[in-house]
Amino acid sequence: MENNCFNMTKLCPDADNTLGTVCIFGTGDFGRSLGLRLLQAGYSVVFGSRNPQNSSLLPKGAQVLSHVEAAQTSRVIFIAVHRENYEFLSAFSQELAGKVLVDISNNLMKNQYPESNAEYLAKLLPQANVVKAFNTVSAWALQSGSLDASRQVFVCGDNSESKQMVMDIARSLGLTALDQGSLLAAKELENYPLQLFPLWRLPIYIATGLTAAVFIYCVLTDIVYTFVTEGKDNSYRIVISIANRVCPIVSLIMLSLCYLPGVIAAILQLYNGTKYKRFPDWLDKWMLCRKQLGLVALAFAFLHVLYSLVIPIRYYVRQRQNIYIISQVKDNKTLTFDSTMSWRSDSFYSLGILGFSLYILLGITSLPSVSNMVNWREFRFVQSKLGHITLLLCTAHTLVYGWNKFLYVSRYKWYLPPAYVLSLIVPCIVLVLKLILITPCVDRVITRIRQGWERKSVHVPHDTSGQPLVL
Amino acid sequence: MENNCFNMTKLCPDADNTLGTVCIFGTGDFGRSLGLRLLQAGYSVVFGSRNPQNSSLLPKGAQVLSHVEAAQTSRVIFIAVHRENYEFLSAFSQELAGKVLVDISNNLMKNQYPESNAEYLAKLLPQANVVKAFNTVSAWALQSGSLDASRQVFVCGDNSESKQMVMDIARSLGLTALDQGSLLAAKELENYPLQLFPLWRLPIYIATGLTAAVFIYCVLTDIVYTFVTEGKDNSYRIVISIANRVCPIVSLIMLSLCYLPGVIAAILQLYNGTKYKRFPDWLDKWMLCRKQLGLVALAFAFLHVLYSLVIPIRYYVRQRQNIYIISQVKDNKTLTFDSTMSWRSDSFYSLGILGFSLYILLGITSLPSVSNMVNWREFRFVQSKLGHITLLLCTAHTLVYGWNKFLYVSRYKWYLPPAYVLSLIVPCIVLVLKLILITPCVDRVITRIRQGWERKSVHVPHDTSGQPLVL
Amino acid sequence: MENNCFNMTKLCPDADNTLGTVCIFGTGDFGRSLGLRLLQAGYSVVFGSRNPQNSSLLPKGAQVLSHVEAAQTSRVIFIAVHRENYEFLSAFSQELAGKVLVDISNNLMKNQYPESNAEYLAKLLPQANVVKAFNTVSAWALQSGSLDASRQVFVCGDNSESKQMVMDIARSLGLTALDQGSLLAAKELENYPLQLFPLWRLPIYIATGLTAAVFIYCVLTDIVYTFVTEGKDNSYRIVISIANRVCPIVSLIMLSLCYLPGVIAAILQLYNGTKYKRFPDWLDKWMLCRKQLGLVALAFAFLHVLYSLVIPIRYYVRQRQNIYIISQVKDNKTLTFDSTMSWRSDSFYSLGILGFSLYILLGITSLPSVSNMVNWREFRFVQSKLGHITLLLCTAHTLVYGWNKFLYVSRYKWYLPPAYVLSLIVPCIVLVLKLILITPCVDRVITRIRQGWERKSVHVPHDTSGQPLVL
Repeated sequence: MENNCFNMTKLCPDADNTLGTVCIFGTGDFGRSLGLRLLQAGYSVVFGSRNPQNSSLLPKGAQVLSHVEAAQTSRVIFIAVHRENYEFLSAFSQELAGKVLVDISNNLMKNQYPESNAEYLAKLLPQANVVKAFNTVSAWALQSGSLDASRQVFVCGDNSESKQMVMDIARSLGLTALDQGSLLAAKELENYPLQLFPLWRLPIYIATGLTAAVFIYCVLTDIVYTFVTEGKDNSYRIVISIANRVCPIVSLIMLSLCYLPGVIAAILQLYNGTKYKRFPDWLDKWMLCRKQLGLVALAFAFLHVLYSLVIPIRYYVRQRQNIYIISQVKDNKTLTFDSTMSWRSDSFYSLGILGFSLYILLGITSLPSVSNMVNWREFRFVQSKLGHITLLLCTAHTLVYGWNKFLYVSRYKWYLPPAYVLSLIVPCIVLVLKLILITPCVDRVITRIRQGWERKSVHVPHDTSGQPLVL
Repeated sequence: MENNCFNMTKLCPDADNTLGTVCIFGTGDFGRSLGLRLLQAGYSVVFGSRNPQNSSLLPKGAQVLSHVEAAQTSRVIFIAVHRENYEFLSAFSQELAGKVLVDISNNLMKNQYPESNAEYLAKLLPQANVVKAFNTVSAWALQSGSLDASRQVFVCGDNSESKQMVMDIARSLGLTALDQGSLLAAKELENYPLQLFPLWRLPIYIATGLTAAVFIYCVLTDIVYTFVTEGKDNSYRIVISIANRVCPIVSLIMLSLCYLPGVIAAILQLYNGTKYKRFPDWLDKWMLCRKQLGLVALAFAFLHVLYSLVIPIRYYVRQRQNIYIISQVKDNKTLTFDSTMSWRSDSFYSLGILGFSLYILLGITSLPSVSNMVNWREFRFVQSKLGHITLLLCTAHTLVYGWNKFLYVSRYKWYLPPAYVLSLIVPCIVLVLKLILITPCVDRVITRIRQGWERKSVHVPHDTSGQPLVL
Repeated sequence: MENNCFNMTKLCPDADNTLGTVCIFGTGDFGRSLGLRLLQAGYSVVFGSRNPQNSSLLPKGAQVLSHVEAAQTSRVIFIAVHRENYEFLSAFSQELAGKVLVDISNNLMKNQYPESNAEYLAKLLPQANVVKAFNTVSAWALQSGSLDASRQVFVCGDNSESKQMVMDIARSLGLTALDQGSLLAAKELENYPLQLFPLWRLPIYIATGLTAAVFIYCVLTDIVYTFVTEGKDNSYRIVISIANRVCPIVSLIMLSLCYLPGVIAAILQLYNGTKYKRFPDWLDKWMLCRKQLGLVALAFAFLHVLYSLVIPIRYYVRQRQNIYIISQVKDNKTLTFDSTMSWRSDSFYSLGILGFSLYILLGITSLPSVSNMVNWREFRFVQSKLGHITLLLCTAHTLVYGWNKFLYVSRYKWYLPPAYVLSLIVPCIVLVLKLILITPCVDRVITRIRQGWERKSVHVPHDTSGQPLVL
């Protein structure tokens, strides 16, 4: 419920503590926020502190005791101290035996220590049941009850019952608890809050590199060339004209890069005659970030659409148009209407519009809540079938744009082909290969291979650990 | 977590198997993928096989035993064999008594067998606890740990404890387990992965039919008519001009078809004097796919917007404009500014923009994650109130477009009215009926009926099974 | 699964009731719907009624008994009667002792009674375990099995085991059960279905107020001024020209209002020298509705984009353009191309396009399912870093629009500055303050304060209850 943040404080004063007592070691920021939230949800909260007297900052209603006394009040103890101070806890190993210790710690950088904090704690206190949890929840999310940031609590631990107790606490705080398996997953959980869009990195690097390359190429063949050969300064074209040439090229190449790994994988399977041979690592990695590649491509397509639609309101375009008409009138020329040009121009726009609409559809179905609603067959239908049709439409859009321009030598400035010609290479390769792969005779073999059939003549060493199937 | 696919394999080698042992019958593709994933999550895995020796493809760390031996190692046994081989299992009925058998099988087509595979298994082995689960998860999703496709595991079965055990396994694999009730739901679960957008079919058929009909109508009254009467070839108009006439017409009709069943239902309730009379089947079906109707209508509206916005950059439009101006100059005419035309043109666009914006808002609120955040009152406010306002705006947009064109005989080619006139029929009917229904006197009666009141004079046979209420 | 509504009825006839018996007191609309759904899921259902004979409307398969008899059949009893009739239940206090009573009641208005219905019931029957649940689910959602409206069942109660039983029932009906803590949360749950977008109210009031103010200002300086001074009627400009001036101004101001509270909070923390001093209430409230403020601002930006893109197809614009060219031709003038104008016009559009695209990105990441996928660091990166860049781009867009217009006296109609000048005040203040706050020396102090450090010289009374941290 969106508004539960307002009423949260009301829940606290007269709670009759039917939910039991929870102990928190450490009176730092997170400890205090957690204590406040637990009190509001109806728990009794006992803080364990080195100086139980000096506790002016703790939430009202919480008790403060020494560590030993506090540990005796509750089966579940949240360890809200830094990893550096864990050794200090081993002094209480007897009092903590059998207790559920919740490790909520985070590090400052990924893989800071050879072992995760939770495993380190479990080693220090082998008789306690260590559960890693709550490290992905921010103090802000706990305090405000806000649902904006993630309210998912990832939990892992070796003892099922202990995990269950921690997950129950998380749920009664209005959070979503997710079991992530044994304590081996702790390292991953500790790295999780430190990561910044890991799967987006590769696509964004590719996009940045491509954008830079295409931009330089276009500036060279368009602005620098004109300046050198005609001495005219066209630099104002950078802002929109060049941008609107870079965006569609990057978008088209990245869209085809989404579908290239699938094609390569199918060819590898055909070549190996089995699906049980592991793909090379670069292919695995590539396949895992296809969704992100596609969405970055969609962003560029979106920019391309906006840049194209503002064309008629740009001063540059309007002024040129006016100058053109006035010159036509002065020269007493009459314009004629060429219906082939009309076919070509309209087909160009129509293909682009249809391609962009399917693009948007692909984007919407990749929203987590939408992709959760569809079954595997439907997901594949949208992402594979519609995806390839999108690529086909966008490639056709570019081909119609080019038309016969590539035939004229005047277009090859400094012997360089126009940028759009370069952008067509990868998409055309993908489409041609895909076309070959879906011919009945090839398709039949691939289908059989994917159903587990193996070409007997091939003797390859098998490696079945974790190879992804082809989408 | 998005990146858990990378670290998955790390979890496996030194797992101390605190999660217990799971047995899998069958060493096919899905069995192997499942085994690998279970190992990675920290389970011990034992495969039951007819040839325990021939097991080179199985994941490392898994044990392979004969079926009888394997069955003794675990309480939970995944049955990863085809339904055709189930009879073979009845040989071990004694060893399997009391075990939790997880039926993960899928069929090749819907309702292939009179009874579901799971029920068939339960009949063969009446002493075992059969649970249907995991059939909606693909081998790819299991292997890659990818969250792209649905990670929901639907579980059904007659024994609560057995279901709980299977759901716990699903959760510890990082999947979302959803209880779907008793084994009677198995048939539905087995049909689920085979379906391809069942609720989208009717809307897409309607859209296709409407598009074809309107397209032919427009081609007839626009292109064929011009060709026959004037001998001019206007066929280039098909690509965008005609498309941009078809899209808004289909969109408007489909939007009104979203709101027509609600109006019909209200009239039926008024007529029957009770809400406890079941609606006819066609109306029930229609009401269930209103959301899909609306979203298809939104797609057509989106196309209409894009087709309209490219108007000024089309060659056809620019060239005509240039030719027009030059001819005006030659004839020495002066143009005058007509502020009524300006009012009309601007109102036309403004109504369209506002209608489309509300349309988009309706689309966003129908996203699963958004509609999950709103309560019933809010959902009805958006989908009913804002929905009808959207319909009103779009109808007004079309009316202003038409203005007084329908008065001129020259517009009636071959005595056929312009297409937009036909598109206004259903929306206007819906809006007029809705207007009558929300007049205070009628509204009061409907509200009372929906609160359970019945007109006593009416004696209709009651049927309370599953009739939907009106939105 | 989307289609389970079709097959629902099939599940009912031959269910062998392994799920146990559930009792419902009250045969009203919700009671009947619930009973039908429970039967379909495989439960036995017993209704408790004052007149067990008169039960023609109840779903087939359900039993009807007197209250006392019915209560004995099940541990869980749904109380589907109005609060006004609760006193009547105290007659059966002995039969209901130890039972799980599910209070599903709703009121007609918020905070109708001093205590929640569930707490009132618990007071009347102190020996029963009262659980509040199911009040947020509509009869329609229960009957149709539709997943459109929220299928979340919020549950609260003082007895954990009882809550668990009710949550299990909810889950076996295909609903999502969410534990909301103790019975103290009941009031909130009862208010929940009555609320209508509470967090959206303030942003929508602000938007309405701003829109009205800016609209009047623009009408005054544009249309009324022209009418008074030149006697010309420009009123047709209201529909799009004025609207397209109001939308961007409101959007920009509201976007900056999203980021103003964060800046104010940082300054307050700097001034107080601690983060443990509670923010004033208005600031707390403001910070909680930032997301809604931003989304309303995005809606206005969307309208602005559409209004801008239709410019070249408006009659007003086209006709003026034609008249202009013809007059140029007549006066025998030649137009020149000004590349500074081109730079300015293109930069203006380009900044707007980039700003709008980032805006859309912010909107997408605020979708619940997307924001659930990102960790705290990623969320802050998008909403804070990208957010401020968006504000910067949009402000620059407006500044380039204005260019040097503010220098010309002719623009100050009736000594009033152009509207866009006013719209720049708040964004510029926010950006300047933010710039100061991110200078290394200031940033270092704030970071330390947010990590818990306190300036010792300051002696402020601490209040740690629920103060939000700064985003």
